[in-house]
Amino acid sequence: MSFESMWADLQPVGRSASSGGYRRFAWTREDHDLREWFAGEAARRGLDLTEDRMGNQWAWWGDPDRATRDGDKGVVTGSHLDSVPDGGAFDGPLGVVSAFAAVDALRDNGFSPRRPIGIVNFVDEEGARFGVACAGSRVITGAMTARRARSLTDADGTTMADALLAAGRDPHQIGRDDKTVGRIGAFVELHVEQGRGLIDLGHAVAVGTDIWPHGRWRLDFPGEANHAGTTRLEDRQDAMLGFAGAVLAAREAAITHGCVATVGKVAVTPGGVNAVPSAVTGWLDARGAKPRAVRRAVADVSGMVEQAGGHVTEESWTPSTPFDGELSARIATRLGGIPALGTGAGHDAGILANAGVPTAMVFVRNPTGVSHSPAEHAELSDCLEGVAALTAVLEDLAGDVAGDAGDGA
Amino acid sequence: MSFESMWADLQPVGRSASSGGYRRFAWTREDHDLREWFAGEAARRGLDLTEDRMGNQWAWWGDPDRATRDGDKGVVTGSHLDSVPDGGAFDGPLGVVSAFAAVDALRDNGFSPRRPIGIVNFVDEEGARFGVACAGSRVITGAMTARRARSLTDADGTTMADALLAAGRDPHQIGRDDKTVGRIGAFVELHVEQGRGLIDLGHAVAVGTDIWPHGRWRLDFPGEANHAGTTRLEDRQDAMLGFAGAVLAAREAAITHGCVATVGKVAVTPGGVNAVPSAVTGWLDARGAKPRAVRRAVADVSGMVEQAGGHVTEESWTPSTPFDGELSARIATRLGGIPALGTGAGHDAGILANAGVPTAMVFVRNPTGVSHSPAEHAELSDCLEGVAALTAVLEDLAGDVAGDAGDGA
Repeated sequence: MSFESMWADLQPVGRSASSGGYRRFAWTREDHDLREWFAGEAARRGLDLTEDRMGNQWAWWGDPDRATRDGDKGVVTGSHLDSVPDGGAFDGPLGVVSAFAAVDALRDNGFSPRRPIGIVNFVDEEGARFGVACAGSRVITGAMTARRARSLTDADGTTMADALLAAGRDPHQIGRDDKTVGRIGAFVELHVEQGRGLIDLGHAVAVGTDIWPHGRWRLDFPGEANHAGTTRLEDRQDAMLGFAGAVLAAREAAITHGCVATVGKVAVTPGGVNAVPSAVTGWLDARGAKPRAVRRAVADVSGMVEQAGGHVTEESWTPSTPFDGELSARIATRLGGIPALGTGAGHDAGILANAGVPTAMVFVRNPTGVSHSPAEHAELSDCLEGVAALTAVLEDLAGDVAGDAGDGA
Repeated sequence: MSFESMWADLQPVGRSASSGGYRRFAWTREDHDLREWFAGEAARRGLDLTEDRMGNQWAWWGDPDRATRDGDKGVVTGSHLDSVPDGGAFDGPLGVVSAFAAVDALRDNGFSPRRPIGIVNFVDEEGARFGVACAGSRVITGAMTARRARSLTDADGTTMADALLAAGRDPHQIGRDDKTVGRIGAFVELHVEQGRGLIDLGHAVAVGTDIWPHGRWRLDFPGEANHAGTTRLEDRQDAMLGFAGAVLAAREAAITHGCVATVGKVAVTPGGVNAVPSAVTGWLDARGAKPRAVRRAVADVSGMVEQAGGHVTEESWTPSTPFDGELSARIATRLGGIPALGTGAGHDAGILANAGVPTAMVFVRNPTGVSHSPAEHAELSDCLEGVAALTAVLEDLAGDVAGDAGDGA
């Protein structure tokens, strides 16, 4: 199976006819079809398919348990197959398809790995259904407890426990899986770039340096419900005004401090055309290369919110996650000195890095910078350059002697 | 049944324990209970209960058909019993309860009407469920076709036709009802004031002059879906920014031109915390005593929206609706020279006035100006003054000889 034919097989799965974007959410019919596809690709290549306690899929070339016993852990690549609502085709699947294509290329070259090579499909990376990103990697590394995962609910009120049951899985089996994580000597995730960072660098691929610090804040504005026709302006407490001010302040603060800030979600009570809003809640997402810049931008917005009588709650804050410096340097060198790039997006690679796994990322150029959108794109030639890069990296890491990759090479 | 005991009977129906506000929507269980209450009050007083083609309820003291044949149409009062989401107790029910209380007072005084007196409960005045206000009066006067009413849908996708069926009614029976409208010689709707207009005037009741011109505009802002972490500020087309600017511009324009403007509803696509909005739609409600002021304010906002690359669509525009000048003057005089007041709120009285029925309104003071809110209030003493006023008005209009009321008195 060539890269192109695998890509063509995935193309229709979960694609919305109306938007042209993908709706591939965890533990749905579409997710099931994608898992079947993954199992089929593993079987076609004679790879050993396993699932961990969270249902992440692993396809192994070589025996990772014997290798681990020998002190020679596996080299793992892969990504995820789920999507955000109306997401693009590349975010996730590019890493999985490239992984299978790289294994094919290694075999075509007559390569025989000295360390086992694994391909992973992490479940529920986008968190589109249950609100927490990277649920698959978080649970097996212990970054999220099984209890919390089970109790997460989707927009219809279905808990993840019920969704697992509906997908034929036992929610009480999920949990931290040290055995699975312990098999990973190095993890290299290939991913489409999600901004325009690679365009100006003139390269088709780059190596990742770190995941930017990022956070999420809830902005609550109180108001007083009232009739939109009969209430004089001076008698109003219109919660929408404070919200609007905060949206504009967030953009200003991001420009001032050199980071990014987004208000992409809002909830209005009561939400009637002829009713003065009694409450508006907005969510602020802010990230940047420098944590101090992000903190300062959020402080500016918070000042504005509080001036409008509102209240700011920090829902999450994730410090900068650096990838393994030596592993990344080795990859960059092996690929002829490709550029290095930080990213504002979260990834399973970040979760594994925080769990102590030597981790690196390879980014493939995005010619428009558009992501989380039906318009997300990457040129086929760039994708194939990504496959070649991943092939070279696996050859280097898995062809090497025990212990060389990731922990001291 | 005293005013207070009728009020107490209605108090629990459709009241939300969490908000303290009312959720009384058309053709629901709560609506059914309110209709049963109305029928019970009519029966208790020996009034003849009829329903028109739209299901509006009419309780008659005297035979309106004989009176109409004699060229002596009825005098009708009443209002509605439904509510906005988390609405107050007074908006609507005050007019219906006061109507029954006024009939009781007339009988206690030994009054015998020369013209029949009717009490009406209009269905679906607020339009909270199907989006169109005054559906009950609109359909019977022909201001809305039966076909359009049947096809209106609620938030769950239920059409009004299906809602009628579920309530045990035949959706194909609804329609214009000239016979019912033809019985009304004069309509006087008593309603709680929904702003602070009566506070400064030092009176418990006022007579209505007109319903302000009002309209509704949809503001569509295009953007480009993108990742909130990886997309540089300069590469974004964030639809939320234009929306926020329009919200602030609407308030500014209302101040400048001396009207009111409200953005109480917004829809964001895709609506994810970590996604740059690809589309935001807001709704602008604008009203004022002077149509030119409202038009100018909307023009200001439209300019701002178009500058942000957005698009403005007028969803509705209702010119000023004056009430019957002679009828209103007669009422004001009968009540000892009470003040006159325009209103920014729509009412069934406005629909009837536009249909050519001689129509007037009596407003009862709202001490806080709050309406469409659980905090809506009116003092009992003011409510009883409203009942006394309505009693005097009915005595004047229905005790008079044929033809004197509404069309030349």
